[in-house]
Amino acid sequence: MAGAEGAKLWGGRFAGDTDPIMKKFNASIPFDQRMWDADIRGSKAYAKALEKAQLVSTKEMEQILTGMDQIFEEWSTGVFLIKPEDEDIHTANERRLKELIRAPAGKLHTGRSRNDQVVTDMRLWLRDAIKTLTDNSLQLISTMVERAAVEIDVLFPGYTHMQRAQPIRWSHWILSHAVALSRDVERLLEIKKRVNVLPLGSGAIAGTPFDIDRELLRKELGFDGISLNSMDATGQRDFIVEFLFWASLCLIHLSKMAEDLMLYSTKEFSFISLSDAYSTGSSLMPQKKNADSLELIRSKAGRVFGKCSGFMMTLKGLPSTYNKDLQEDKEAMFDCFDTVQAVLQVTTGVMSTLKINQSVMEAALSPDMLATDLAYYLVRKGVPFREAHGVSGKAVFAAESQHISLNQLTVEDLTAVSPLFGGDVSSVWDYRSSVEQYRAPGGTAKSSVAAQVEHLRIWLTKQTQ
Amino acid sequence: MAGAEGAKLWGGRFAGDTDPIMKKFNASIPFDQRMWDADIRGSKAYAKALEKAQLVSTKEMEQILTGMDQIFEEWSTGVFLIKPEDEDIHTANERRLKELIRAPAGKLHTGRSRNDQVVTDMRLWLRDAIKTLTDNSLQLISTMVERAAVEIDVLFPGYTHMQRAQPIRWSHWILSHAVALSRDVERLLEIKKRVNVLPLGSGAIAGTPFDIDRELLRKELGFDGISLNSMDATGQRDFIVEFLFWASLCLIHLSKMAEDLMLYSTKEFSFISLSDAYSTGSSLMPQKKNADSLELIRSKAGRVFGKCSGFMMTLKGLPSTYNKDLQEDKEAMFDCFDTVQAVLQVTTGVMSTLKINQSVMEAALSPDMLATDLAYYLVRKGVPFREAHGVSGKAVFAAESQHISLNQLTVEDLTAVSPLFGGDVSSVWDYRSSVEQYRAPGGTAKSSVAAQVEHLRIWLTKQTQ
Amino acid sequence: MAGAEGAKLWGGRFAGDTDPIMKKFNASIPFDQRMWDADIRGSKAYAKALEKAQLVSTKEMEQILTGMDQIFEEWSTGVFLIKPEDEDIHTANERRLKELIRAPAGKLHTGRSRNDQVVTDMRLWLRDAIKTLTDNSLQLISTMVERAAVEIDVLFPGYTHMQRAQPIRWSHWILSHAVALSRDVERLLEIKKRVNVLPLGSGAIAGTPFDIDRELLRKELGFDGISLNSMDATGQRDFIVEFLFWASLCLIHLSKMAEDLMLYSTKEFSFISLSDAYSTGSSLMPQKKNADSLELIRSKAGRVFGKCSGFMMTLKGLPSTYNKDLQEDKEAMFDCFDTVQAVLQVTTGVMSTLKINQSVMEAALSPDMLATDLAYYLVRKGVPFREAHGVSGKAVFAAESQHISLNQLTVEDLTAVSPLFGGDVSSVWDYRSSVEQYRAPGGTAKSSVAAQVEHLRIWLTKQTQ
Amino acid sequence: MAGAEGAKLWGGRFAGDTDPIMKKFNASIPFDQRMWDADIRGSKAYAKALEKAQLVSTKEMEQILTGMDQIFEEWSTGVFLIKPEDEDIHTANERRLKELIRAPAGKLHTGRSRNDQVVTDMRLWLRDAIKTLTDNSLQLISTMVERAAVEIDVLFPGYTHMQRAQPIRWSHWILSHAVALSRDVERLLEIKKRVNVLPLGSGAIAGTPFDIDRELLRKELGFDGISLNSMDATGQRDFIVEFLFWASLCLIHLSKMAEDLMLYSTKEFSFISLSDAYSTGSSLMPQKKNADSLELIRSKAGRVFGKCSGFMMTLKGLPSTYNKDLQEDKEAMFDCFDTVQAVLQVTTGVMSTLKINQSVMEAALSPDMLATDLAYYLVRKGVPFREAHGVSGKAVFAAESQHISLNQLTVEDLTAVSPLFGGDVSSVWDYRSSVEQYRAPGGTAKSSVAAQVEHLRIWLTKQTQ
Repeated sequence: MAGAEGAKLWGGRFAGDTDPIMKKFNASIPFDQRMWDADIRGSKAYAKALEKAQLVSTKEMEQILTGMDQIFEEWSTGVFLIKPEDEDIHTANERRLKELIRAPAGKLHTGRSRNDQVVTDMRLWLRDAIKTLTDNSLQLISTMVERAAVEIDVLFPGYTHMQRAQPIRWSHWILSHAVALSRDVERLLEIKKRVNVLPLGSGAIAGTPFDIDRELLRKELGFDGISLNSMDATGQRDFIVEFLFWASLCLIHLSKMAEDLMLYSTKEFSFISLSDAYSTGSSLMPQKKNADSLELIRSKAGRVFGKCSGFMMTLKGLPSTYNKDLQEDKEAMFDCFDTVQAVLQVTTGVMSTLKINQSVMEAALSPDMLATDLAYYLVRKGVPFREAHGVSGKAVFAAESQHISLNQLTVEDLTAVSPLFGGDVSSVWDYRSSVEQYRAPGGTAKSSVAAQVEHLRIWLTKQTQ
Repeated sequence: MAGAEGAKLWGGRFAGDTDPIMKKFNASIPFDQRMWDADIRGSKAYAKALEKAQLVSTKEMEQILTGMDQIFEEWSTGVFLIKPEDEDIHTANERRLKELIRAPAGKLHTGRSRNDQVVTDMRLWLRDAIKTLTDNSLQLISTMVERAAVEIDVLFPGYTHMQRAQPIRWSHWILSHAVALSRDVERLLEIKKRVNVLPLGSGAIAGTPFDIDRELLRKELGFDGISLNSMDATGQRDFIVEFLFWASLCLIHLSKMAEDLMLYSTKEFSFISLSDAYSTGSSLMPQKKNADSLELIRSKAGRVFGKCSGFMMTLKGLPSTYNKDLQEDKEAMFDCFDTVQAVLQVTTGVMSTLKINQSVMEAALSPDMLATDLAYYLVRKGVPFREAHGVSGKAVFAAESQHISLNQLTVEDLTAVSPLFGGDVSSVWDYRSSVEQYRAPGGTAKSSVAAQVEHLRIWLTKQTQ
Repeated sequence: MAGAEGAKLWGGRFAGDTDPIMKKFNASIPFDQRMWDADIRGSKAYAKALEKAQLVSTKEMEQILTGMDQIFEEWSTGVFLIKPEDEDIHTANERRLKELIRAPAGKLHTGRSRNDQVVTDMRLWLRDAIKTLTDNSLQLISTMVERAAVEIDVLFPGYTHMQRAQPIRWSHWILSHAVALSRDVERLLEIKKRVNVLPLGSGAIAGTPFDIDRELLRKELGFDGISLNSMDATGQRDFIVEFLFWASLCLIHLSKMAEDLMLYSTKEFSFISLSDAYSTGSSLMPQKKNADSLELIRSKAGRVFGKCSGFMMTLKGLPSTYNKDLQEDKEAMFDCFDTVQAVLQVTTGVMSTLKINQSVMEAALSPDMLATDLAYYLVRKGVPFREAHGVSGKAVFAAESQHISLNQLTVEDLTAVSPLFGGDVSSVWDYRSSVEQYRAPGGTAKSSVAAQVEHLRIWLTKQTQ
Repeated sequence: MAGAEGAKLWGGRFAGDTDPIMKKFNASIPFDQRMWDADIRGSKAYAKALEKAQLVSTKEMEQILTGMDQIFEEWSTGVFLIKPEDEDIHTANERRLKELIRAPAGKLHTGRSRNDQVVTDMRLWLRDAIKTLTDNSLQLISTMVERAAVEIDVLFPGYTHMQRAQPIRWSHWILSHAVALSRDVERLLEIKKRVNVLPLGSGAIAGTPFDIDRELLRKELGFDGISLNSMDATGQRDFIVEFLFWASLCLIHLSKMAEDLMLYSTKEFSFISLSDAYSTGSSLMPQKKNADSLELIRSKAGRVFGKCSGFMMTLKGLPSTYNKDLQEDKEAMFDCFDTVQAVLQVTTGVMSTLKINQSVMEAALSPDMLATDLAYYLVRKGVPFREAHGVSGKAVFAAESQHISLNQLTVEDLTAVSPLFGGDVSSVWDYRSSVEQYRAPGGTAKSSVAAQVEHLRIWLTKQTQ
């Protein structure tokens, strides 16, 4: 009957008993071999639980552990040989174990299913990956905070709508991005909590029918908790989706910072120069120096979002428990990890080596950016802000009409728009005084920016304890 | 010059001083009026801070507060009149305040920008919305948990790959979804922490130049913390993205549950019947009873994901601080709230009224679903699982060859595949015994399922304290 | 039994026979009423087919047609009254018809299902919408082409990687976007072909069991073809997905153009000034003039993509034929139409009113942008390009070292890097000569740009014939 | 200064002149080497154009052509050696050419930029890929059409909302999916038109400054047309986005077909059995036979959509012309091609080998599915459909109340609900007669289904001519 089933009934491409394309399509070993270490750790812990449950003898357990150590060695040294029948990392390691220790290997899968095995491996792997990304993020934030501390006295234009808005400190800009990244770290640690839950002992769907001590497994593998429901444990991939989304939002943040830096590194802005290490030339134009690193950073937000959205679509409307569709989880996870790690490291490199052109930055400040200060001058004399805003607008118009800058208006010119202007108005036209007004928490005054630096330094110390 | 600028130079559709389509395009009042209450609360708190900073007198503050109370009254009773020049809810409320109290109204915006005002309003609104969704989620989970408690003795087939896998408890299935929803609640509460941070006092970009007591604002408005950096505070929308993603993942969970229920409510499965309240008929086919409610639940995952992915794309590569692009935030937030709220309520309705067809469910259990148990029988006699699995597979094949069910194989038939089979093999063919094997935490044994119910009941109690 | 089914068994929010939230959730009339005209047209045609099939008498047909005309009148004049039981536009119109003409109204739905009715209405509506968007697109392209024709002599820097690359014509930039939009029009017309196919006569799933003349329906409704398979006809929404994707790609194009224009309108670039009609001020900063129109244009790419991606997710993995999930189609379609139409019109307004600052544009050209020309000078003397590129790079470095611009290098300086440089090298430093080199099709020489203008003018004429 | 730029100023991870992570991040050779053939073809054509423009001598051209042929040979035989400095396939091939032929190699890039070179290569590659996918699609459609022709007499339930609706032909179901796929082919051919346009001769941005005969290039490389604008030619990736979207919609179609087949292959439906070649077993449950192939097919819709949505996000808001962000184009293109090709082939395998269980399919037809026919019986006696629908509904209710099936109602029972029922009502209860009613084009009558088969056969023949 099996033969007949394989028969080619209405033409089509395939007639044999196994379709090689199907086989390739089905195999995950090309990518999931990356979890070899996690798989070995999971199997060693499971062997101990089997022994405790008297499903393997102590000797058999030791054989399994020794065999697994040897397999670890083979992977570590790059000599592990994947065979054509190794569909995934789990079958590869088990097949090898059997070659090494024979009979007892056949007991390792007792009460275990690939369904709970694969999520155990993924959670172990991702837990380590999250640790790495946390470190990379902290290094970037630290670099930014220290840079902000050193360059705290540099002023430059703050923009809204890509138009010059108000004078701010360069460090205030740096910290605005560092603060966003610190939220990313907080989110990542929340995800880690949910990643670090043991699914092993859930079987395929119904749980384990043996006296497998799940608490023992938890301790052996360093998990914080134990999954509550076996169907959920084997069929959910929330922790992957959360991670993919985390990566997407983190890279959206970096795309925003990269966009700012690209603007600042145009010839027209000329606020910063990237290190040569993060720039490239042109195959055609000898004079070009392109900020490729920033463009790559920006572009990866799309890449990572694509993994997230693709996997979410795959999950939509799936029935409960394990379906092969879930196999899309691993490539997405690996690629997002690799991408975010590279982006964080390159961004750290960019931020630690770029040079600012302070004189250009400060020369870009212009008196019209103090139009709000002019309004505040009147507010301080009791004029309602809405009215003061209108008066200041008239002053801006008067200056434009005379083709002069706002600070070149005479007291007479100003008095013409409001009698409240006096000689002391000249004090408005000082950029450093202007920024020093913003002393409230979060503002751009030196004390406020220094407080932000301090806050983040303390936060960083806490994270690395 | 302004006139000349408006002139039509190269044809095109528009020549006047204002383009009505641009105006409409720019206006947010059609949707952001929904935040009228939050806007009033924010302005009242700000008036108090202005008074403390001596930017308005006590009397002016009281006028503002009284005026705002009257505006509150007008919105509450549906008599507030939006005027054509009201671009958004903020200008509408301020315009009305000016009509009511005249001059002091012009002082309300002192040191405040729409940039910090709008995020303050959104955070207040979303905080309340999260409270509502948390309650809706808890009601759904509670309904599911109590149903699981009552129907704990009902068995039915557990499926993997949409194929019958092993007998499980119906309540185990219910709880697998309840557990996923409880993670959604945890995530929502984490987001709430980040939503509930005060941005007011950040101005447009640089902070506030006056002695605005941000701590006073925080207390007045019930925020948990104060934003750290004014550029970040006004230009980031992480809390919206997080909320949209939360909604997407939550509805993906419900799409999965709906998919299961749709399968179970097909004629072919006939495990459940939806209440008429959640079904509809056909305009053409008189016999049809469609599970429309489930299809709507499933479909909304896409809708909400669309809001999330659309807004993420909008954010990608944006420069720092406020850009008009951010205006896409509000419609997405409102629509996701409305959709998720409706879905949670309808799902609660569905889950509290559907009827199960216990006899059909139990009749769907078949002896081949105990093939794993047959293997376990051998494991308990010392056969390595891999070998036992193979033996059981041979028994399955033998039964299929004879066109009988697995439990109809005689002891002789079984002995032919393994001499270890004995008369006691008949004990395998009991579905209730089978499920009772899964006593480890998370398994489908009665005690394990009851423990899950208990765990969730305690968790629910904690959430509502 | 129905009563029992509605009973609240395990708590939960709802106990009655109909859940008002479910009802609201299920209703589409709030949005699908927009297709009232299409629905009437479809029903009138169907009445004629029923008459031909002798399922209604000629008199009944006339009653239906007259009734439908009256309903048309009611909608047109805004007096049509939607009643609470009107679930969708189809039931609303049929209900009203029954009120107007009684018995014969009950025959209109003979052999028709809402499944084929709703897609007929959508196709009629979308066909008109596509016509409108085509016109809007052509008007925008035409505005751009005519502007390019007028301003053909303006040079400015062409950028790659946001860095100055080579001198180009401003019109060359305009046309690069116009050409992209012309592809959008071509794509839209391809979609129109697939939209304009008659599904009516497909029933719910199996087809129509009566002698409904589908060819008559096709002609009456102006469709180009007839759907091939009734299951496909009622269950597929490809034409909607295609439209949503079209809208997304079109707006990605406009987001790119808007990004360029935003750069060009920064203070730092100052190449263009938007008309006041397309700019707005700041609630805080009196001097600000923000290019809100461009930001809105850019932001809408995300919005529209969200509709597309959301609906695609909704469709993923749906079983065949009509499922209620498909109801997500209409809001997405309407919103994308409205958004793209507004964006196209606003973009046309922006492009027809913005002013260029020619002197600033030309002043932004700098000699280093001719480094490639310097290499070409050597190529023309027989030096392999790779070598010439290297030599030119050395010249760039020499100039930078002396802090002079490239064209200030003396012939001696140049001879030091390559003996092939001669006095005629001075001819390189002419921006107009430089652009005139690019005479091949698609290049930035005047003749090439003029040819592009001509090509697009002819293309535009063809489209509007 | 360059040295100083590379210095580590504020800590951070990197201090040298080149950051190895940046280098790896920037390199595309690991994936773009796949275009080695296209790159060689492009360079050979370009050498001919250079010769015609007298930029290389005939001898030099021949050296280049011979060198390129040798490089072709090296790639073909797998001996081409990628060196560490080979950033991409273009530099790799040019580097190798230089090794082989020395000086003339340096002339190959004259007037060419990587910007126009890379899109030329991609268009050549994708054109071939589209050809392959068209062939794969046609083979699948052909398999389905021929299967539909053979099994035309098999009836089974047609479903809407996953509920049994009306009896239909199994072939009608097959063709509903074949028709959708035929639209995919049409769309793919439209895309091909836009892919097959020559960008070479556009340089980096401004065009080519030499007498490069673009028409000669077009002919040499078999393109249908020449790009209109050099900035657009080098900076647009519409053809990639279109292809990614095509792949997404095509796989959404196949996810729908897979979902149907998964339902049909559940134990509960048992309509079909997959060939063993497309099923797999369970690591735990010996009796399981999982339809993994169908799940993989369904899952890939998400994967491919992820590539599409990710790349669209990358493009959003990018400035004009080439930015490094565009480098995301190639991996997306390759992965979508590989995935869709595998899915099409596996689906062809599945569809050509699955076995239907005709007796189960026909036994699943039930009299209530003829309730619409019962209404039509009355319509044919002059009862308005709305009324007939109501009467039939009453009959359904009467049967349900008596716990009998609809066709077991006596004529008396029926007369009780409508006096128009007569003895001839028994003719309604024939499934074959029922389907034969649907003779209009697109219906499920045998003649209509046969006409669909014929239509598609003719269409297939046209495609392969």
